[in-house]
This record gives sequence, structure tokens and C-alpha cells, in this order.
Amino acid sequence: MENLPLGVFSPRGKEPRCGIAYEDFIFDLREARLYEEPDLNLLMAQGRTQAAAIRARAVEEIRRGRHLVLQTECELLPPVRIGDYTDFYASIFHATRVGRLFRPDNPLLPNYKFVPVAYHGRSSSIVLSGVGVRRPSGQLPGEGGPVFGPTRELDFELELGIFVGVGNRLGEPVPLERAWDLIFGFCIVNDWSARDIQRWEYQPLGPFLGKNFATTISPWVVLSDALEPYRTAAYRRPDGDPRPLAYLWNEGDQQRGGLDITMEAWLTTKEMRHRELAPQLLCRTSTRWLYWTPAQMVAHHTSNGCNLRPGDLLATGTVSGPEERERACLLEITNNGREPIQMPTGEQRCYLEDGDEVILRAFCRQEGLPVINFGEARAIIEG
Amino acid sequence: MENLPLGVFSPRGKEPRCGIAYEDFIFDLREARLYEEPDLNLLMAQGRTQAAAIRARAVEEIRRGRHLVLQTECELLPPVRIGDYTDFYASIFHATRVGRLFRPDNPLLPNYKFVPVAYHGRSSSIVLSGVGVRRPSGQLPGEGGPVFGPTRELDFELELGIFVGVGNRLGEPVPLERAWDLIFGFCIVNDWSARDIQRWEYQPLGPFLGKNFATTISPWVVLSDALEPYRTAAYRRPDGDPRPLAYLWNEGDQQRGGLDITMEAWLTTKEMRHRELAPQLLCRTSTRWLYWTPAQMVAHHTSNGCNLRPGDLLATGTVSGPEERERACLLEITNNGREPIQMPTGEQRCYLEDGDEVILRAFCRQEGLPVINFGEARAIIEG
Repeated sequence: MENLPLGVFSPRGKEPRCGIAYEDFIFDLREARLYEEPDLNLLMAQGRTQAAAIRARAVEEIRRGRHLVLQTECELLPPVRIGDYTDFYASIFHATRVGRLFRPDNPLLPNYKFVPVAYHGRSSSIVLSGVGVRRPSGQLPGEGGPVFGPTRELDFELELGIFVGVGNRLGEPVPLERAWDLIFGFCIVNDWSARDIQRWEYQPLGPFLGKNFATTISPWVVLSDALEPYRTAAYRRPDGDPRPLAYLWNEGDQQRGGLDITMEAWLTTKEMRHRELAPQLLCRTSTRWLYWTPAQMVAHHTSNGCNLRPGDLLATGTVSGPEERERACLLEITNNGREPIQMPTGEQRCYLEDGDEVILRAFCRQEGLPVINFGEARAIIEG
Repeated sequence: MENLPLGVFSPRGKEPRCGIAYEDFIFDLREARLYEEPDLNLLMAQGRTQAAAIRARAVEEIRRGRHLVLQTECELLPPVRIGDYTDFYASIFHATRVGRLFRPDNPLLPNYKFVPVAYHGRSSSIVLSGVGVRRPSGQLPGEGGPVFGPTRELDFELELGIFVGVGNRLGEPVPLERAWDLIFGFCIVNDWSARDIQRWEYQPLGPFLGKNFATTISPWVVLSDALEPYRTAAYRRPDGDPRPLAYLWNEGDQQRGGLDITMEAWLTTKEMRHRELAPQLLCRTSTRWLYWTPAQMVAHHTSNGCNLRPGDLLATGTVSGPEERERACLLEITNNGREPIQMPTGEQRCYLEDGDEVILRAFCRQEGLPVINFGEARAIIEG
């Protein structure tokens, strides 16, 4: 009852509609006449107050057991028509480890501690959890020049997704003080990456085909309101790190702008599923490690007047932490393929093989507080 | 009659509808009951054959003088809901000049002659010709570290825009042979750039706030069919340049994949307009110089399975040529502000000042062939 995330579903043979997840059920917002759109965009545009009002009404109905359908009898659909998708690079631990591999002489660039670095991703190829991901082909760096073929370095990236609510007008920056209020909710994001394609193409304009073949999101949008108990201090920068510029810094955000969400990545191989072995945990990390808060990301993104629209998706970038078990992609975990993972079947993995399934999960759990579950974003690699 | 570009307009007091530009008139497709949607997306999804059929019917009606309204009595509107916007970097002359400024030791990166380099732009901030562009603020590199303030290096980039027609499914690359057929039409694009913001932020993930504050497009979509007479040989690579990989190379594209479109950039200052002086020509160049053809861009973009949707916009990147007068942005023209332009008022320009208006034009003209006019993409800089 404290979570009640929003999503879109289709009960057998019926049109798509929005709903609220509650235990094994979905509360049907359309049947309840609380919201009749086929996706969440309009509600996001109306903002969090309206969403809170609808949720409050829904709670009463759910308590009476009304308009509930079993999740198993529904098909889940993408919750939002995403206009633009922006991917940040907000874990300094990820940026440093990756930088070491891509640019050994120059791992962390001079702008990192000042700029919440980000790039535009592709919205057309964002797919829902459960949709298979086809192994992309592309130009791979080779000794005698590039060759075209299927990527040999297919990776996942464990990220937190941030959905924009009301948005802002073109030319009107959102100050940091108001930035949190623009955020409607959150999901899990797998920013699939083909490392060999990316390495060869990414200079000077950034990642492109190494990323835009697929991005997987979890189906349920956890509202910002539900995360209130898990707002926490921003990452405490080590002494000596510069203070961000004024437009990215205020006390309120430093004290309450961080989020304490545990995020996990799990892997099964085809062989493991065949033998009915449990998935293997690859990583357990936390959004507490992010060098930039969600509000800082929004304030930065709009600081030049760029407009965010309802339903736009921001992602944090790979949520890696300082510890080895907190490395949130295979590039980091296997040290770019040099230190393979051992699977319980005896199989080894440097990067993902066809038939592998990656399962990303996220939750908030702390003594005395309600558990907030984000569900999962999973997909099987297709050859 | 050979051009007949498509756009969206609103006759006084009436709802938006699609139309065809003809001399000083717009042919109203809705009144003629030939196409009744408020934008071109559905027609783009239906593809070029359907568009050609509608145009043929329109020609008959136009000859009879039916359903024509004066352009001066209409408001022009964005022709398409653009899903994703991708910007290429297809002029090797631009890439080399810019590379020399940003990376003097390493102007043209090793991937350039193999990869049609591109990055994702922002679709939310694409605006129509005539909409004012507000000078963005951002982090500017400084001696003692970055400072936040209005950009001092506001630039234009003269580009050709490519609208996707039918598109492709996720996971299904479009081979080069079929790539031209996916292209519905073309427009003019001004990819505004704040060079100081861009220089500080762009590594390692590419341009972001230095670009996404605004992109201006011209209102009329020139159909691929109208450009048939101006299809020409692809840019002839100098001896010694590598041949592109097989997925980017075939004889047909080499012989007919290029386009011979003249593109111009003009500038007026507030003072010039006040004194009623004519705009000053900054640049006249041609798309013949592009190192990659539009079909190569589409084939590359989809080579990893990335899906293009009807109405998606690709832009070529700055269409600079080898000659000095063919430099298609101020970064090149003024050698990054070191060699200012002299205006007829005695004013100088290194980068754009508030009140300046940039006017981009494009046309095809060749003896014995019909003239194809793209109209213009213009905007005034607001402080």
C-alpha cells in the first residue's frame, strides 16, 4: 500500500489501460473511472499532485477489493510514450573504472566533477522487460582495420530511470530548488552496450550504434512520493573535490537529494535454465553512490533552456559503487573480458552469450520503513 | 509544379492541416479531402508511393485553381512530430577544420573514413523557422575552472535534414540497396551550437547542452521524388582513402547516391535590419561534398538493428566544402573567433550577437532542369 506503482496493461482481450500494481493484482484505473488514457503521459503532464489524488482514491477502492485483476491474466505494456531519452554518467566509480579501460592515461576527464555528463539516447528502441534483445552487428575494431560482424562484447548496464512529470518550457531552466518536483517517478533501466562497436565509434561525438539497438525498462513506475522515506543525503564528495557551481548546489539537495535504492543484476545461461539452476548474482549496488542527484541532473539538463516533456526518460548511467561486488556492468566486472565470471554450470562469461538472460532488480528496504519494490527489467539475448 | 513540397499550416482561425506549397499559395489537402491528418506522420508511414499518388491528384486540382489559399494568410506549423533526431558529421571538410581547432594534434580521428559518425540529438527542442532562439547559458571553460553564464560562442550549423518515411522494425537492418527508398523527403536544418559549452562538456560522451537548446528546421518537406533530377555521383574519395566496408558500398549508391543541393547561410544584424541593408552571404556550399550519402547514413544507422520510425529526422552535419567560401559555420569561418567577419555597417562578428538573424537557404538549379527550392530556416537570437 505504500508503493502502488503505475503501469499499463491489457487484460485478456481488452484494450490497453493504466493500472496500479498491488500484491498479485492490478487495480484497473479505467474500470474505476479514475484515469482512462491508454498510457501515463497525460497523468505525468498533470503532475504529482493529481497522481497522488488518484492514488488516494485507488487505495479506498483496493481496500474494498474492487477493480482488481490478477497480474497473471494481463499483458504488461510500455507505461509511457517516451519522447526523448537522456543517459547520464553519474557514478564516478563507473566513470573511473571505464575510463581506465578506454583511456588508461586519462581515466577521469577534467570536466567530470563539474558537469553531470550526459548524452542523448534513442527512444525508438526502448523496449519493455521481457522483450528479447537481438545481438547487434557493427564495425568492430580489428588489427587490419575495422570488420563488420556481430558484437563480441555485449554488455548490460544497471541504471535507474527517472520519468519527467510536468516538464518545462523551451528557454526556461528549472532551478535546482524546483527540480525534484519535476520528477514523476522511477524505473529500472538496462542500457545494453556493445563495447567493441562503442570503442571504435565513440570519438568524437559519443556512443551511438554501440547503445541504440535496445534499452530495456521495467514495467512499473514507482512514484517519487513513494520514495520519500528513502530520500537521503547526497553522495559525500571526498575532501579536495571541487564544490559544484551554484546552479547545481544547495543545502536541501545535499541533505535530501540522494536516494537509497538497492539495485541488483542477475544472470542465467540457457544451460542454467535448462538445469533449473537459480540465477547468479553479478552485482548489488546502491544509488547512494551516484555523484549527482536526480535533481542536479534535471537542473543541469534544463540549465541551457532545454525543454523536458512529460514522459521523457532520464537514466542515471551505470550505478556502480566503490566495492568489487558493486560493479554494475560486465566491462567492469570482468575487467573488459580479462577476468571471466564462473557460472555454477562450469560455464564462463566475459560478455553475454546468446541465450543468456539478464535480470535487473531494485528495491528499498530499511528497518522500520515500508519496502518499495521496483520489480524487474529482464531480457534474453537472441543470436 | 516539379517541387510541390509538403507542410502543415493553419489558415486564419482554422485547425492545422497539411498542404502543398505552390507559388504564393498553399493547396489545402484537407479541403481537397486528399489527406486529413494534422501532420505528415501518417503519410510518411504510408511511404512515397502513397505520397506520389496524392501529389498527382493535387496537381490536377491545382491546375483547376482549387483549394488554394494565400501563404500570407496562413500560419506555418511544424510539418512532422519528430520522434528521434540523429545528427551525422558527414562533411570531411567540416570534421577536419573543427578537429584542428578542438584537437590540433589529432584533427581527423582514425574512424572517420570508415564510420558515418553520428550522435543522437534532442527532438523536444526542434523548432520551426521564425521561432526566436534564446541564447543559452551553461558551464564555460575558464582559467580558474568553469564558470556559469551565457554562451559567448553562439554558432549556427548549415545542414540538410532527412525525413524517414516507412521506417524499419527493431532488429531488422535496412541494406544499402533499399536505404534510399526509406527516405521520404528533406528540409533545411540549423543545428545551433554553443561552442564554449560544447568544448568543455563533450568528452567522453559527445555534445549535449552545447546543442540541445534549439534546432531550427524549414517548414516545407521537399520529397525525395522531386530531387530525382539532382541525384548525382557520391563524393569521389581521394586516392588512398579506404573503401567503405561492404554494407556501406555499392555501385548504384556511388553513381546516384549523392545530391547536388546548393546551401547558403546569410546573416543580418539588428543594425542592418534597422538600416534596411540586405543580408550578408556567409557561405555557399553544396551537399555534393558530403563524404557519406543519405543512403549510407540510413544503412549505417540501422546496421545494428536500430529502428527508424516515420517522421524521424536525420541531419547530415555541417555541409562544409573544401573552399573558404564553403565553410558552413562560424567556428570555421572565423577560425574560432580569431578572424572576425566584417559587416556592411562596420560591425564585426566572431560569433552571433543578440539580435542577429541567421537565414539558411537551399535550392537545386541546373540548366535544363526544374528549379527545386527548399525555402528557408531563419531565426533571430534573443538575449
